[in-house]
Amino acid sequence: MFEIAELGHAICETDYERLLPELRTRLLLSQQKVKRSDFPVIILISGVDSSGKGDVINLLNEWMDSRYMRTIAFSKPSDEEKERPKFWRYWRTLPAKGAIAVYAGSWYSNPISRRVYDKINDGKLMLDLKHICQLEQELIDDGVLIIKCWLHLKKSVQKKRIKKLEKNPDTRWKVTKKDKKHLKFYNKFISVAENVLAETSTKHSPWLIIDGFDIRYSSLTIGQHILSRIEQHLEKRQIKKPSQSEDLVSDKTYYFQQKLLESLDLSLRLDKKKYVLLLSKYQAKLNKLARHAHEKKLSSILVFEGWDAGGKGGAIRRLTHAIDARSYRVIPIAAPTDEERQHHYLWRFWRHFPRAGQVTIYDRSWYGRVLVERVEGFASNNEWQRAYAEIVNFEEALDDHGIILLKFWLHIDQDEQLKRFKEREKISYKKYKITEEDYRNRDKWAEYNVAVNEMVTRTSTQKNPWLMVEGNDKKFARIKIIKAYCEYLEKMLD
Amino acid sequence: MFEIAELGHAICETDYERLLPELRTRLLLSQQKVKRSDFPVIILISGVDSSGKGDVINLLNEWMDSRYMRTIAFSKPSDEEKERPKFWRYWRTLPAKGAIAVYAGSWYSNPISRRVYDKINDGKLMLDLKHICQLEQELIDDGVLIIKCWLHLKKSVQKKRIKKLEKNPDTRWKVTKKDKKHLKFYNKFISVAENVLAETSTKHSPWLIIDGFDIRYSSLTIGQHILSRIEQHLEKRQIKKPSQSEDLVSDKTYYFQQKLLESLDLSLRLDKKKYVLLLSKYQAKLNKLARHAHEKKLSSILVFEGWDAGGKGGAIRRLTHAIDARSYRVIPIAAPTDEERQHHYLWRFWRHFPRAGQVTIYDRSWYGRVLVERVEGFASNNEWQRAYAEIVNFEEALDDHGIILLKFWLHIDQDEQLKRFKEREKISYKKYKITEEDYRNRDKWAEYNVAVNEMVTRTSTQKNPWLMVEGNDKKFARIKIIKAYCEYLEKMLD
Repeated sequence: MFEIAELGHAICETDYERLLPELRTRLLLSQQKVKRSDFPVIILISGVDSSGKGDVINLLNEWMDSRYMRTIAFSKPSDEEKERPKFWRYWRTLPAKGAIAVYAGSWYSNPISRRVYDKINDGKLMLDLKHICQLEQELIDDGVLIIKCWLHLKKSVQKKRIKKLEKNPDTRWKVTKKDKKHLKFYNKFISVAENVLAETSTKHSPWLIIDGFDIRYSSLTIGQHILSRIEQHLEKRQIKKPSQSEDLVSDKTYYFQQKLLESLDLSLRLDKKKYVLLLSKYQAKLNKLARHAHEKKLSSILVFEGWDAGGKGGAIRRLTHAIDARSYRVIPIAAPTDEERQHHYLWRFWRHFPRAGQVTIYDRSWYGRVLVERVEGFASNNEWQRAYAEIVNFEEALDDHGIILLKFWLHIDQDEQLKRFKEREKISYKKYKITEEDYRNRDKWAEYNVAVNEMVTRTSTQKNPWLMVEGNDKKFARIKIIKAYCEYLEKMLD
Repeated sequence: MFEIAELGHAICETDYERLLPELRTRLLLSQQKVKRSDFPVIILISGVDSSGKGDVINLLNEWMDSRYMRTIAFSKPSDEEKERPKFWRYWRTLPAKGAIAVYAGSWYSNPISRRVYDKINDGKLMLDLKHICQLEQELIDDGVLIIKCWLHLKKSVQKKRIKKLEKNPDTRWKVTKKDKKHLKFYNKFISVAENVLAETSTKHSPWLIIDGFDIRYSSLTIGQHILSRIEQHLEKRQIKKPSQSEDLVSDKTYYFQQKLLESLDLSLRLDKKKYVLLLSKYQAKLNKLARHAHEKKLSSILVFEGWDAGGKGGAIRRLTHAIDARSYRVIPIAAPTDEERQHHYLWRFWRHFPRAGQVTIYDRSWYGRVLVERVEGFASNNEWQRAYAEIVNFEEALDDHGIILLKFWLHIDQDEQLKRFKEREKISYKKYKITEEDYRNRDKWAEYNVAVNEMVTRTSTQKNPWLMVEGNDKKFARIKIIKAYCEYLEKMLD
């Protein structure tokens, strides 16, 4: 696929000087339009060594307004980055809506170089590429424009260029030991790259392969490519907005599972005496296990979802009672902040990932997308339908990093809920918990029921199944939860 | 000062059980009030080893709603933390308005232990304490409530307790090698602590010293102390709001310097030929120096302030032209986001500090506090008057970390500004830069003039003076700026 980029394309200075002013003006104008738009732009500049990637990036920064554009380069992961899933370092740098980010090095660098040096095999490479495609697709679905440019260079030209750079004392620093080492791996590199580019050129994020022989040619070509992609995207988004026809997706598919919640036995109970015994038994057990996990830097993420007044708070309190306050954090999920709204809906969960060895407890979570956002219409049909697969991928990334993930659904019936609302209204420091909204949500029980059933069915994977907790008896529910976490920790620490 | 905390205070279980329920209810209610308030609460739990700090923290988390309370513990600084000024790790964890954070270990830990182990002398300790007092005072001025608790323990009790913990296999993990080592340093530790507590007990953030002999006594005392401090603070904030009488501070003091800006020679010019020569000369020089600095991990922060149309953008572009896009970032300062509004006004500058070796360019900066916020009335008199000292401290922290800081004021006169506005309105891709607001700001020239004069006078320190740039001739200004940065880098790299 690289032959066409080996022809030695060049542009003479006169043509360059003639074409550049208009390109710059149009780039600036399109940047201003992006600034006012509802999507970010991600530009990846990758390619072979000495193909002028740095020069192109510098020119782009000059041509556009560098105040609203950020260039992001990666060196070795910091220790804070190493303690999180592999894509964390990319998520934390993703541009907000209206911004443009140029990536010098990206999620592609690591898989390519590891494959070239035989640190991974083709199978692992394919898996990495699958994750990359998922990431890009999720961003694209969210409206992000991804522009991927690959700068190519013939072997002979690369060699000559490196020699020339080395000769000149002013440019010698540009040639690192790594470059010379890479030179020997040219053929291998090209074959890996060919594979990677073919596998990751999708309809909505195709690779542009450019001959890096002449910086005037390559920079102009990339500039024009960026311009036309942005203009197309702006146009597409404008047309799309009013119709939203694709939103009319049927949501009948998963109705068959509607009885899942009803099948839970809500009569399950524990008498007080037994509860007190079991509680102190499992809290003591959890205390040891949690300490052990903390020492081993084994992290846990516990997700609590459930009906209003389902007993999440109380269950969380019984559980955290057994854990040192310095090693857990409870994160209540409320409405996103405005910074969070400027990003993909999963960004707010990525950003707060704890460092290694911590227990993070989400009181409500990313599942809001397919629950409240679905039922209240905050997310379009398209958005929440897509979310099941996005969430499964997201949780897979946690798994891959060795993080324990447990998801609890606290289930109660409507009568029990009403009883609890009334009780709360009587207690001074609990009164604030009950608002009119709670009663409004109650009226939508049937709709939530459908949403919960579908959520549980579609996001229970082999590794991360939902744990359904029969919650009409709080005591029973609390013990079931602590016991489940103990068992899981025990298994993982073994 | 510790004698009173060595009497072996204790509370019997009956009294504890009797007092606790009311305390818990009141703590929960006060936490709810804090949640709706406009200030955060910081609780520091410090003290001698084995005095029950961890137990107290766990109890506080149980008594209050741990979803709106965060416990923050520090271990060794991460590499990302090491690359920033020493307080960065604390700033990044500061709670937002309405939140409560419990610090297990804080800005006190490091100075105390370094002094105990003779890594620093008394002079350096005093300097550290001065910085701590400044930090706390700035937070307090911003409305933060800081509650500092010190758990004390007699030497003999501490020794006994450690022995007892060691005997029991269930608690043995609590005793680290460090604890046993510390035991030998008890006397030294106590004398350093005495010093530290005396120096940092201020009117608005006094230390509470508690006997750690009995956990019931210490936890109850700390709980009650927290409750009463929060209640007092809520009351004080309520009274304060309407009057704002302290805002009536005279701002006549610095008028004498009003002629500073007028003394700049705006006729200074460079002819085009000379400009072209000098520009390429200094850009080449800067390119080398910047590369060198990047390798040495020497960071720079460049601040650009100036009149609208003063030429900041153009000057920044000429400067960044010489630097690799991967190692600089331009940050335009616009209105704060809602997350930023929930913190101290300097928080948003702390949070975006770059890692080592980067050049960060601020197009407008923290000086907005004493310019636009002062003139437009976004900050109260009290707030902007305070800001001069806060900013000087802030910049000192950068200095202390070895970060280069240069501050440029781009000065033009009113005629030149009008000329530039008119020019911009003619150019399609610059038109968007001129809004009605620019003309409105122009009408306030005199007020801004006073503010700029005062700013330059009061924040020009020996290490970080303002560089006044005569900007009526853009060419002259650009060369002056690049040259100044070159000279500074050269000096620092020497």
